[in-house]
Amino acid sequence: MKKIASGIYKMTFGTPEAITPVSVLQPGTRFEAINALKDHPLPFLQGDIGFGPRKGSVLLDIPLEPNEEVYGLGLQLKSFRQSGSKKKLRTNSDPAADLGDSHAPVPFYVSTAGYGVLIDTARYATFFCGGCKRVGSRQDEEGFKSAGTERGHWEVKKGSGNMLVDIPAAEGVDIYIFCGDDMKDAVSRYNLFSGGGALPPMWGLGVLYRADWHANQEDVLKLARQIREDDMPCDIFGLEPGWQTNAYSCTYVWDKCRFPDERALIRDLNEMGFRLNLWEHAYVHPESPIHNELKPYSGDSYVWDGLVPDFTQPQAREAFVGIHQSTIDAGLSGFKLDECDNGDYIGNWGFPDFARFPGGADGEQMHSLMGQLYQQTMLDPFVAANRRTYGQVRASHALAAPYPYVLYSDLYEHKDFVRGMATAAFSGLLWSPEVRQTATREELLRRIGAVIFSPLAVLNCYMIPSPPWKQYDHDKNHAGEWLEDWPQLTEQCRQLLQLRMRLIPYLYAAFGKYKVQGVPPIRPLVLDYPHDREVFDCFDQFMVGDDLLVAPVVYGSGDIRNLYLPEGRWYEWSAGQWIDGGQWITRQVPVDQVPMFIRKGALIPWAAPVSNVEDGGMLELHPVLYGADEGSCSLLCDDSTSYAYQSEGLTFGTINVSGDRTVSADAVISRRYTIGDVTFVKDEA
Amino acid sequence: MKKIASGIYKMTFGTPEAITPVSVLQPGTRFEAINALKDHPLPFLQGDIGFGPRKGSVLLDIPLEPNEEVYGLGLQLKSFRQSGSKKKLRTNSDPAADLGDSHAPVPFYVSTAGYGVLIDTARYATFFCGGCKRVGSRQDEEGFKSAGTERGHWEVKKGSGNMLVDIPAAEGVDIYIFCGDDMKDAVSRYNLFSGGGALPPMWGLGVLYRADWHANQEDVLKLARQIREDDMPCDIFGLEPGWQTNAYSCTYVWDKCRFPDERALIRDLNEMGFRLNLWEHAYVHPESPIHNELKPYSGDSYVWDGLVPDFTQPQAREAFVGIHQSTIDAGLSGFKLDECDNGDYIGNWGFPDFARFPGGADGEQMHSLMGQLYQQTMLDPFVAANRRTYGQVRASHALAAPYPYVLYSDLYEHKDFVRGMATAAFSGLLWSPEVRQTATREELLRRIGAVIFSPLAVLNCYMIPSPPWKQYDHDKNHAGEWLEDWPQLTEQCRQLLQLRMRLIPYLYAAFGKYKVQGVPPIRPLVLDYPHDREVFDCFDQFMVGDDLLVAPVVYGSGDIRNLYLPEGRWYEWSAGQWIDGGQWITRQVPVDQVPMFIRKGALIPWAAPVSNVEDGGMLELHPVLYGADEGSCSLLCDDSTSYAYQSEGLTFGTINVSGDRTVSADAVISRRYTIGDVTFVKDEA
Repeated sequence: MKKIASGIYKMTFGTPEAITPVSVLQPGTRFEAINALKDHPLPFLQGDIGFGPRKGSVLLDIPLEPNEEVYGLGLQLKSFRQSGSKKKLRTNSDPAADLGDSHAPVPFYVSTAGYGVLIDTARYATFFCGGCKRVGSRQDEEGFKSAGTERGHWEVKKGSGNMLVDIPAAEGVDIYIFCGDDMKDAVSRYNLFSGGGALPPMWGLGVLYRADWHANQEDVLKLARQIREDDMPCDIFGLEPGWQTNAYSCTYVWDKCRFPDERALIRDLNEMGFRLNLWEHAYVHPESPIHNELKPYSGDSYVWDGLVPDFTQPQAREAFVGIHQSTIDAGLSGFKLDECDNGDYIGNWGFPDFARFPGGADGEQMHSLMGQLYQQTMLDPFVAANRRTYGQVRASHALAAPYPYVLYSDLYEHKDFVRGMATAAFSGLLWSPEVRQTATREELLRRIGAVIFSPLAVLNCYMIPSPPWKQYDHDKNHAGEWLEDWPQLTEQCRQLLQLRMRLIPYLYAAFGKYKVQGVPPIRPLVLDYPHDREVFDCFDQFMVGDDLLVAPVVYGSGDIRNLYLPEGRWYEWSAGQWIDGGQWITRQVPVDQVPMFIRKGALIPWAAPVSNVEDGGMLELHPVLYGADEGSCSLLCDDSTSYAYQSEGLTFGTINVSGDRTVSADAVISRRYTIGDVTFVKDEA
Repeated sequence: MKKIASGIYKMTFGTPEAITPVSVLQPGTRFEAINALKDHPLPFLQGDIGFGPRKGSVLLDIPLEPNEEVYGLGLQLKSFRQSGSKKKLRTNSDPAADLGDSHAPVPFYVSTAGYGVLIDTARYATFFCGGCKRVGSRQDEEGFKSAGTERGHWEVKKGSGNMLVDIPAAEGVDIYIFCGDDMKDAVSRYNLFSGGGALPPMWGLGVLYRADWHANQEDVLKLARQIREDDMPCDIFGLEPGWQTNAYSCTYVWDKCRFPDERALIRDLNEMGFRLNLWEHAYVHPESPIHNELKPYSGDSYVWDGLVPDFTQPQAREAFVGIHQSTIDAGLSGFKLDECDNGDYIGNWGFPDFARFPGGADGEQMHSLMGQLYQQTMLDPFVAANRRTYGQVRASHALAAPYPYVLYSDLYEHKDFVRGMATAAFSGLLWSPEVRQTATREELLRRIGAVIFSPLAVLNCYMIPSPPWKQYDHDKNHAGEWLEDWPQLTEQCRQLLQLRMRLIPYLYAAFGKYKVQGVPPIRPLVLDYPHDREVFDCFDQFMVGDDLLVAPVVYGSGDIRNLYLPEGRWYEWSAGQWIDGGQWITRQVPVDQVPMFIRKGALIPWAAPVSNVEDGGMLELHPVLYGADEGSCSLLCDDSTSYAYQSEGLTFGTINVSGDRTVSADAVISRRYTIGDVTFVKDEA
């Protein structure tokens, strides 16, 4: 057992493998930040953990008390609290059942007892979160009343047991234990161990609109103009497969028939306030100019006849970045990194687990690590250019916190998408419940109402040529038949997206806290209220930053929303009234609204909404102080687009409202913000 | 490479494991029957097969030509033709996606080139059925045009490659290659290698009605009387968990409060013409009298606090059978063996893969083999009593053909259930698309219309106290509110179930052929017409025996049925007309009918329907000769309930219609059948 930082311990069992998340991804652990935190002892000793090999795997048997609740294990779309469950953590797109398959299966769990455990493996490890009782175990000695059924009843009860982790193909493993005051502290420490949270450029917190995949250069510019004419907030304009000469597999070569001049495209979009983002995946078509150069640094199986580059190899990364360099130099803002998630639900959208790679990984290990290796590869040229990027990705794993990529999925069940916002936060992941096709007006608005509180507000309109606020119906959109009342729907969409834009300074500060303290910017209530049993299964309510509680309405659940307010006093934004916490409440929520509650005492730095965030542009703040006479808020005041903070550190500034209602602000605030009048919302109670 | 029988070859790669289907299940291969078949050379040599270890697994690379189509891999509910797919064969209830999880994943595939391959492993092997192309492979050298997309199109094409089989934890494996004239011949040889097909008692081909799980002895008898009053065919009456004192886990002790006298129950049911079948699973409750005796012969993890017996151990089998012996002696007909299928979709309904068993298997291996070990255990006492049994089971694997147990599932999508009837036939499995709850009259009738053509006609009414023909709606059934027109629905159900009863002699003969020749009694068209591409994806039409083609209407697909008739002439049963084969036809099918076609020249031994098949009772035949002046059919003429055939051989008798319309029959026919007048259905074409 080795203590590696304040409250972080490493234990080694047997002989760990060479290819693991920690060894391959080499996290830039923020020791200084961690060691400034309070130290904590281990919740159990190495000797309390059982370890044994079986043929073809090793088993860890880690103490778990009956009163502990377990969360985590990465992006879990189908379940929230993991206590009692069994999860096999396999990178796999489109998890059809609650078995652990995930775009981002992370072998890290946290307990309400205030610690987290990272199993440093790139294998498809299986976690039994207390549901499996072993013969001769402590739980066995305590008797058999915990599970089974009562006479005449045949519902099965949850079993009781330790946390059992089965790791195939390994002969040993390192585990890291993250202690803390509570779960949030343990998660934050894990994120700092990973390198601190991702810091998007401020423009990344605006809206991403992804265009019809059949659009050509002219169509794209027409659509961009339409978005501006509609006064719809949008910072990022995304293209789908159609930009390349061949996309399954990819050439990474602009199709000059559709896009005769990509430099002009980027320039024209920039002039309208958009930044370009490009879809791609990593499987390299035989006709791609980098194919031959990559071949020696690729795996031994094809995907759609395309090479699978081994991004652990510098030569592979260099060749792969090389073919993108001129587009990046022309001003490209980032990528959507698709298909790196071992899709096999629709037949072989990935390489086999038995594939071998030049760097020594096999296919199973590469599936676990590919998402982040791909992210790192496509991050490097932006770091070199000292321009932050913010993109999308289909796969991640352990230690993902520092990567400025937001997960997305082809699954589309809204409840699962909202649940993903909650589970991502336990494991250093960012997730966007993107809006895609919608069957009804209500669906469009409900989905927008959730996505605006996520790390990336994505409208993925790749299937329709005109914006969904003109016509959400696929066929009618294609036929150019706009809704009769499209101006009204456009206004409703605009209001929701403008709410996102009004929150940008507040969100950006929350991401600053993610970067330097590791605190997830958007998180389920249980991270802030780990001792309130009412929130143990509350997967559809979120703390956004420290002072906003939002409860999106899941599409399909009707318009009646039951929600829980934790202890304290809360200001209900839509109704303009104060409510006591510690209770469940019920609201009828109109389709264009989202229940939002503000913590008493908070000073929220609302911004005047802009359509997009300009480099170096100023935002105008209209702070509101809720239920107090004095208060303050902290804002991140860097240039918001470069990596200067890596040498200079992140600069936060404070806005203060004192008891005599005077407002003061640190000088750095004026780098990015002008401050208008402060509004005071009284709590008369 | 070793030739082990006519057209059957064994190859060994590396060092095979000790625990495999062949080594543990010890099939009673029917060498005499196989060696009477035509010999065939191997489709490829051992040297054509690649074999290589990777860390934690071994890989087989078996030739597969682009023009071969692949079927098999056990009960696959979600897909039929496996060419191009990837399947990880894991025993797991409720497969939610098409990944290979199955109640009965069988590592055996067949090719339209006329051979089958059994990979003798109890591991969760992954099969890449031609969709994965490897660098440097023959397919690689042939160029890249096979997969990928064309410029401007982004649909993904199927890849091309060999059959790749990845076997975890193993260091070697035996494979068996079954050659033949065609796929059906290869499948039949595999079934004979397994020990020949299962032969149910004749009464097993009647109807099984499973009663409300809350019913007590009095309720059961009342329900049984109701079934007889309704003149509804039924041979088997099944109980659900409620018969035991504790069921999750199981005590195997009659709950005397509900069932004061089980011997009287069996006797009373027998007197009404029913045979009793009991639900159970194999996890042994701490309060079961056999718990302590079993403990040394059980695995090291509990399921619902119940022991998991290691049925490879004679002591475990003996203790387990012991507690059932008195009920078997009292006349019990068989069991429904539940929960042996590693359910983990609803949380830990199984032991972990890392469990260890006294006989040397780990949990992964035991999950593969448990279904058949459990079947064997519960078969032994019936063999000892010289009484055939016929039951239900939730899991099987390789070499299952001789086991008289029919698979069932908690999944309920009717299309998947019908597809299971097709896929089961490739791998020596019996499957019943049982009828359970239904939302509508149409659903009830459509589901009965399919199940009557399956190996076991199950009405699983465990959720409703009265028969569904009185009221299919769950709540109204509980409330005792019968349908206004229940007599009409009852008549419709009766007609369908009587159709089943009319087919019993024909079906029983088909099972006889399964036993001695290995030919699946119910099978998809591609087994009989492997060169007709029209049937390659035809999963919802079946040959029942050699002369009947049925095309059940999948519930939810409306009443318009497109179906394909293969070459030849066919008599459409409902319309009474002749049709040329080699074409697709469309029919509007009323809810109480099933499209059924009879091959020209067939003599079908229709029986007068009975409500149940008595031991030693005679059936009255009304043979019909279709489109010919002379013809014959073969019937199985044993005692239909004992194992006498094991020493005496199976006795078939022939009914002949000669050109002068005279009927003759072998003497043995009169053991079981009386023959009425023959009807001639002319084909005027």
